[in-house]
Amino acid sequence: MSDDTLARLAAVIEGRHPAAGGDAATSYVARLFSKGTDTILKKIGEEATEVVMAAKDGDRTRIVVETADLWFHCLVALAHFGLKPADVLAELQRREGLSGLDEFALRKAQQRFDSGESA
Amino acid sequence: MSDDTLARLAAVIEGRHPAAGGDAATSYVARLFSKGTDTILKKIGEEATEVVMAAKDGDRTRIVVETADLWFHCLVALAHFGLKPADVLAELQRREGLSGLDEFALRKAQQRFDSGESA
Amino acid sequence: MSDDTLARLAAVIEGRHPAAGGDAATSYVARLFSKGTDTILKKIGEEATEVVMAAKDGDRTRIVVETADLWFHCLVALAHFGLKPADVLAELQRREGLSGLDEFALRKAQQRFDSGESA
Amino acid sequence: MSDDTLARLAAVIEGRHPAAGGDAATSYVARLFSKGTDTILKKIGEEATEVVMAAKDGDRTRIVVETADLWFHCLVALAHFGLKPADVLAELQRREGLSGLDEFALRKAQQRFDSGESA
Repeated sequence: MSDDTLARLAAVIEGRHPAAGGDAATSYVARLFSKGTDTILKKIGEEATEVVMAAKDGDRTRIVVETADLWFHCLVALAHFGLKPADVLAELQRREGLSGLDEFALRKAQQRFDSGESA
Repeated sequence: MSDDTLARLAAVIEGRHPAAGGDAATSYVARLFSKGTDTILKKIGEEATEVVMAAKDGDRTRIVVETADLWFHCLVALAHFGLKPADVLAELQRREGLSGLDEFALRKAQQRFDSGESA
Repeated sequence: MSDDTLARLAAVIEGRHPAAGGDAATSYVARLFSKGTDTILKKIGEEATEVVMAAKDGDRTRIVVETADLWFHCLVALAHFGLKPADVLAELQRREGLSGLDEFALRKAQQRFDSGESA
Repeated sequence: MSDDTLARLAAVIEGRHPAAGGDAATSYVARLFSKGTDTILKKIGEEATEVVMAAKDGDRTRIVVETADLWFHCLVALAHFGLKPADVLAELQRREGLSGLDEFALRKAQQRFDSGESA
């Protein structure tokens, strides 16, 4: 397992951008980019649903496959917005560093307060 | 920045499992584990929707934050099923190795055929 | 506007079930039924994402179209499980009758308590 | 049991809008309205996921309850954008009238063509 699977995959994805010479006729990723934001985001909704269904089946092989699909399409979305997986990993590291994930609870509590959902 | 971030974070998450001594009274992650599959999976649906909304706003900071949330809860789901981020990264590497992401198109075409959606 | 658009539509959908003579070669609904639970449920995740995206665009025409798609696929899912829209409407009426929607808040508060999300 | 259920429920929901005197301190719906678009849309993603999970369990009672939740939050979203359930029912009737749901297949095929997904 390399240290930079996500970074390498992101580089491949970026190379499929039409602006980088990606060809929508032959590349699935180039096609996603050329179709634009809604097509890319729709895949995130779809793949998240597939992760949920695989998990409800307790099918560990499919959980891995569908999570890979979900993360892959997240990488496409990140690239579409000029972002990199390193940005997401930095955010995850930042939280981990705060105090062993406690900020997750903190952030969630704050969100619920802001959204009024816990009232 | 590396895949080690995900592995390290997964280790922290695993340490919060009630079976590993995680305390639902003080840890958000322990609470997710103790509530079980549906609570964990519901977060994946929620966070995917938040990624979509942040992206529709073109808000790059929120895209990073919400993608971090989504991946984080994927790590919780993976741990819940005895899986590791390395399993997902291996699946992503496997596809990359096949022929530069072409298998994504292949797999998707097959899925559409299987599901009858492209008919 | 008829009083029973949903009931009538559900009857048409039920008539497309392979068991009722629906033909997957010519009918989209028959094809969904023949592909089974996951194909039907995946559409609910997809269409929900499309409602969210249309709403983020503030595009009222698309909000209506995508909500129609979402409800339509809910009707297919209900039929797949031997349920009818009347079952859902009865549940909605029951809550309304309790005290003007207050039970929604009640139910949600209870859910949050059960799931530990508000803790 | 009739579409009147949805119209009546929509009227109750509209009455909870802060502009109509709804009080976020006591009403869940008023609180959703006051929190705005993202809070409302997030609920659609959440409830869609809950429908999927209930259906994966084959739990017919929960399928009904969660579909009611999903439709309810769709009604809130419609009201938030000045739309009514009658608008959605009219769209469903329009398609049914075209030729017994065939337009659903048509529309989907067109969508897939537009999005390049079937290519």
